Amino acid sequence: MIKVGVVGGTGYTGVELLRLLVVHPQVELTVITSRGEQGSAVAELFPSLRGYLDLEFTVPDENALSSCDIVFFATPNGIAMKQAVGLLDKGVKIIDLSADFRIKDDQLWSKWYGQSHACPELLNQAVYGLPEVNRDAIKAARLVANPGCYPTAVQLGFLPLVKKGLVDTSKLIADAKSGVSGAGRGASVGALLCEASESFKAYAVPGHRHLPEIKQGLEQASGSPVGLTFVPHLTPMIRGIHATLYATLTSAGEDLQALYTSFYQDESFVDVMPAGAHPETRSVKGSNVCRLAVHQPQGGDTLVVLSVIDNLVKGAAGQAVQNMNLMFGFPEAQGLDAPALMP
Amino acid sequence: MIKVGVVGGTGYTGVELLRLLVVHPQVELTVITSRGEQGSAVAELFPSLRGYLDLEFTVPDENALSSCDIVFFATPNGIAMKQAVGLLDKGVKIIDLSADFRIKDDQLWSKWYGQSHACPELLNQAVYGLPEVNRDAIKAARLVANPGCYPTAVQLGFLPLVKKGLVDTSKLIADAKSGVSGAGRGASVGALLCEASESFKAYAVPGHRHLPEIKQGLEQASGSPVGLTFVPHLTPMIRGIHATLYATLTSAGEDLQALYTSFYQDESFVDVMPAGAHPETRSVKGSNVCRLAVHQPQGGDTLVVLSVIDNLVKGAAGQAVQNMNLMFGFPEAQGLDAPALMP
Amino acid sequence: MIKVGVVGGTGYTGVELLRLLVVHPQVELTVITSRGEQGSAVAELFPSLRGYLDLEFTVPDENALSSCDIVFFATPNGIAMKQAVGLLDKGVKIIDLSADFRIKDDQLWSKWYGQSHACPELLNQAVYGLPEVNRDAIKAARLVANPGCYPTAVQLGFLPLVKKGLVDTSKLIADAKSGVSGAGRGASVGALLCEASESFKAYAVPGHRHLPEIKQGLEQASGSPVGLTFVPHLTPMIRGIHATLYATLTSAGEDLQALYTSFYQDESFVDVMPAGAHPETRSVKGSNVCRLAVHQPQGGDTLVVLSVIDNLVKGAAGQAVQNMNLMFGFPEAQGLDAPALMP
Amino acid sequence: MIKVGVVGGTGYTGVELLRLLVVHPQVELTVITSRGEQGSAVAELFPSLRGYLDLEFTVPDENALSSCDIVFFATPNGIAMKQAVGLLDKGVKIIDLSADFRIKDDQLWSKWYGQSHACPELLNQAVYGLPEVNRDAIKAARLVANPGCYPTAVQLGFLPLVKKGLVDTSKLIADAKSGVSGAGRGASVGALLCEASESFKAYAVPGHRHLPEIKQGLEQASGSPVGLTFVPHLTPMIRGIHATLYATLTSAGEDLQALYTSFYQDESFVDVMPAGAHPETRSVKGSNVCRLAVHQPQGGDTLVVLSVIDNLVKGAAGQAVQNMNLMFGFPEAQGLDAPALMP
Repeated sequence: MIKVGVVGGTGYTGVELLRLLVVHPQVELTVITSRGEQGSAVAELFPSLRGYLDLEFTVPDENALSSCDIVFFATPNGIAMKQAVGLLDKGVKIIDLSADFRIKDDQLWSKWYGQSHACPELLNQAVYGLPEVNRDAIKAARLVANPGCYPTAVQLGFLPLVKKGLVDTSKLIADAKSGVSGAGRGASVGALLCEASESFKAYAVPGHRHLPEIKQGLEQASGSPVGLTFVPHLTPMIRGIHATLYATLTSAGEDLQALYTSFYQDESFVDVMPAGAHPETRSVKGSNVCRLAVHQPQGGDTLVVLSVIDNLVKGAAGQAVQNMNLMFGFPEAQGLDAPALMP
Repeated sequence: MIKVGVVGGTGYTGVELLRLLVVHPQVELTVITSRGEQGSAVAELFPSLRGYLDLEFTVPDENALSSCDIVFFATPNGIAMKQAVGLLDKGVKIIDLSADFRIKDDQLWSKWYGQSHACPELLNQAVYGLPEVNRDAIKAARLVANPGCYPTAVQLGFLPLVKKGLVDTSKLIADAKSGVSGAGRGASVGALLCEASESFKAYAVPGHRHLPEIKQGLEQASGSPVGLTFVPHLTPMIRGIHATLYATLTSAGEDLQALYTSFYQDESFVDVMPAGAHPETRSVKGSNVCRLAVHQPQGGDTLVVLSVIDNLVKGAAGQAVQNMNLMFGFPEAQGLDAPALMP
Repeated sequence: MIKVGVVGGTGYTGVELLRLLVVHPQVELTVITSRGEQGSAVAELFPSLRGYLDLEFTVPDENALSSCDIVFFATPNGIAMKQAVGLLDKGVKIIDLSADFRIKDDQLWSKWYGQSHACPELLNQAVYGLPEVNRDAIKAARLVANPGCYPTAVQLGFLPLVKKGLVDTSKLIADAKSGVSGAGRGASVGALLCEASESFKAYAVPGHRHLPEIKQGLEQASGSPVGLTFVPHLTPMIRGIHATLYATLTSAGEDLQALYTSFYQDESFVDVMPAGAHPETRSVKGSNVCRLAVHQPQGGDTLVVLSVIDNLVKGAAGQAVQNMNLMFGFPEAQGLDAPALMP
Repeated sequence: MIKVGVVGGTGYTGVELLRLLVVHPQVELTVITSRGEQGSAVAELFPSLRGYLDLEFTVPDENALSSCDIVFFATPNGIAMKQAVGLLDKGVKIIDLSADFRIKDDQLWSKWYGQSHACPELLNQAVYGLPEVNRDAIKAARLVANPGCYPTAVQLGFLPLVKKGLVDTSKLIADAKSGVSGAGRGASVGALLCEASESFKAYAVPGHRHLPEIKQGLEQASGSPVGLTFVPHLTPMIRGIHATLYATLTSAGEDLQALYTSFYQDESFVDVMPAGAHPETRSVKGSNVCRLAVHQPQGGDTLVVLSVIDNLVKGAAGQAVQNMNLMFGFPEAQGLDAPALMP
């Protein structure tokens, strides 16, 4: 059993972490913080957790947190980077579900996130927590930058093609669709049921913060610059991301289905579906799986890859638990083995 | 480990059973039947189960089923009553999730279900599988009639009042609202997204088959005839039942909150919320819990009880697993301990 | 053509008024106010109105509004009562869609709305704008209090029974379900898609502000005190109210279907459905119609009346336009004649 | 007033036609056919039409239909092509909302629709009913092939670029998302609320029937072959199509915003939004408008065009009414002037 703290337990990423951690056999939750809800019972705010937790929200406090073996930051961007050094110095491991440590280049980070980085010196030791790419580094890491939701879906979909150099990486397109929980639990008009249901829209077409994160990952895989057009959309459902990926094939004769299957054959949480399949987001609702399918319509040179995840699980809290399992030597799938909730 | 068969594995009740059983530590699924899907892989029809099951659907066959320790019937009404005798004779235990064995009076059953009962002789030994009422009998049962979804929510809500004789049982009202999964997975115009979403309606106001089942349960609890008006409604969501129950108080001075709390204090799957609470169906989505709240608006004599369940879990498959656990001496909550999926 | 102003044009009631008024053949919209959106184009906030309106939001100003023939208040409670006198003095007619003038007893109003009434002297001349009850008074009114959404659905459903004295009015029950647009367009966590979709709950069971409004209307119809239990619920859809009404019949032998049909035979916006029908809220989506059905389950003495409206139309903006038509001698259905949007 | 018949009045396209036609000032509906619903009142099947229509469904009959001035076919593919000749010979005009007359090449049609064409000789005189392209020909037409829903959204979005020769037409991508009403009103498991809500998926990636229709239109506009990757998706809502279009700019220095604005400046039903906008499908719910926005992310050479329509209106019934207006010399927007239903 390890002692676990969650900083920022009132958002969707936070409560999803709690859902997974309260039944994880190796975890004892000891601290859950929230400035706004200080003093109220966690299970009062989230009745789904009644009977699982009798903690109250506390104000974030370094002393209390330093008694944990690991602390998850499920906070808005800009918080974790201010508190990480103190905790790391006390020997606490950290998984940051915000974007603070995802981008290696602090200037690039500042440009997209609109503030200076508070501890650029940590960026190099932070490990980007995509286990399918960085498993060994994650095992040894003290600080893991948990990937964004879109970046998880898009990278897992493109990686086999990019890594093998089979497509023109100067012209990749990722048309991604997210459920509304991606917008968070903060009160905002745009995420009201009456605004976001029975409607569909693109947003941030001129530029979304996940663009540089995805490019960084794909460039590392390909070893060369990547040109990516990334268009996110809001779709009227709670959970799920569907990324539809387009790439131009530059090499003939590849058996793409075999490539994908073999590329991910040892991965518990990436499921390459049979040829011709169309994965549905609901097939991963509440689960940590990424389901992929690869298509070559009419045998042309435009490939279409379909990639689905639950944005709150493989796209956030589930991947964080997967990373925690790796960091502590637990079985990688522990606490993540329930099938999706269907229907 | 016990060997488990599921007859009728293609409906929502069936696939929900599979979701729970594939990760139940005491269960080995050995037979899953479906006439329509014979020969196809279960995980092909339900990709959420990929990696959990490599069975194919088979045609129902008594020999194959008789090698099981227990068989669940997740079939339309009228099937289980024809196959039960043969299996019971071979020592197989049965939990029937259809309505075949719920009503003790076969004439009453025939009236509401429009066919003669195929084995009225089994009705007496069938145990009505509401653990909060019949736990001991279930432990000893060979044949359990798993309650309907509405009857579970309505009975658990009314039982403390009726059992204690605090209300006028000649004028009970149950205004119940169900998600669309209650209508099943069969193709029907009325359950299409375009018909059932963005709309709300009552149905079967002249009489619904769950009425006699609820009355039977409440009459057994009260020991006298019960007058019940039961109005079901279809609400535009997948899972969940919310029963709003009305009763006239006949006895002054009761502490109703204390009554409910104490009545259910030993029950793992009934959660009485604090005074003034309004349980939401999503707080039990995917979980086996029934959440209750009791209100006495403006201190008048009309009581309002709010009762929520997930119709596919506590209202069907979860309760069936709870019953299985009791029948085989497993911990009652085994395999049912995950929190609700929220949001 | 009359000149029309709308005070508070940014909420759902306001934008619904605009939807109806921009195509009303007798209406010229001249002023639309909003403190928060001052200076921005109305059609920028609501692109559905692009091409219909080139007004900008302005700060509420008595001079500008006094050039209108009529002003609609689509404001939070407590605004209209402060501005009404000034406008009425300048000969401007007013329809208030908030609750300020609905309750005749200013003490009762204060109790439920938590503030003193700013102009109790206007309460007597304010006409409660339910045309089916007060048509002649509305025609002559200078100030109309537009009914609440629940009160419209509940009163239209109960009125025939109560007016004819056929039921026990000491024990009426109204179990009402509303779409989320009833919660307004303000940013609130509870109305987020991720909180309010895929869930169902009751709220305000101890007491809701529409209770005294409904009681006042029913008591006026019956001529005696009314006991009402009113339980509102939130249902996961945008528009629509479904009221399920329960009453105990005190008089045998009535042909209730005939009673309802004849009671509403001259009403354009109340549609009594055939015996046995179950009206769906979607059958009135976007339309000003209230659809009713009356049931007597199993021939017992508990009656069940089903009443559906679109909360934003017959429950708010549509009824306001109907009242405007009456006040200015236009055909009562003018601008309100489009069928519901189905599906 | 013209006499209008609708063949196939029970699907979503059919009932949407009825919604528009019952309040069209120049239309008298005289015949509505359905084999399945023969003899039942139209308003019984669709209560939203109660009070607007007292017709019954009749069996399709050439004599009855030949008394109409125009007949709409809202039938499955393969029906209209068998009945068109007879009606045209009797002087009846036809608008076919199915796909029978959309493709000029009958061999290509056969390949995609899986049957021989019943009257290829009519293909040349059939006018493709996209008014923004073929307005004059539609005015003179006897037989109009009403465009598909996806083809309407995609063509209107690409046309300015393709017509002006500004993009590489060998590599166009259309990533399109449709509400579930596009799947029709037939009972099917895939369109059940419990299957299609809270989920998102692509379908028909290997090839969708609207692909050749879109290519034909774009090739006619560009005067040269077009390479198009078209990926349709199902999104959990009732109405709406959002097409996200990708093209590679081949010509520098164009003011694309100005191009789009001027290209559609005389069109009542195409609304080019301001630079930087993201049109939402709900902004056209129930309306005949197509809203467009054009983006050039990060100033690169990949253009992104966003195009939204209501699939049942501009994508089907509304465009059909627009075509009828043109064919009979009515104002083009008559009966189509209501704003979208929002929210």
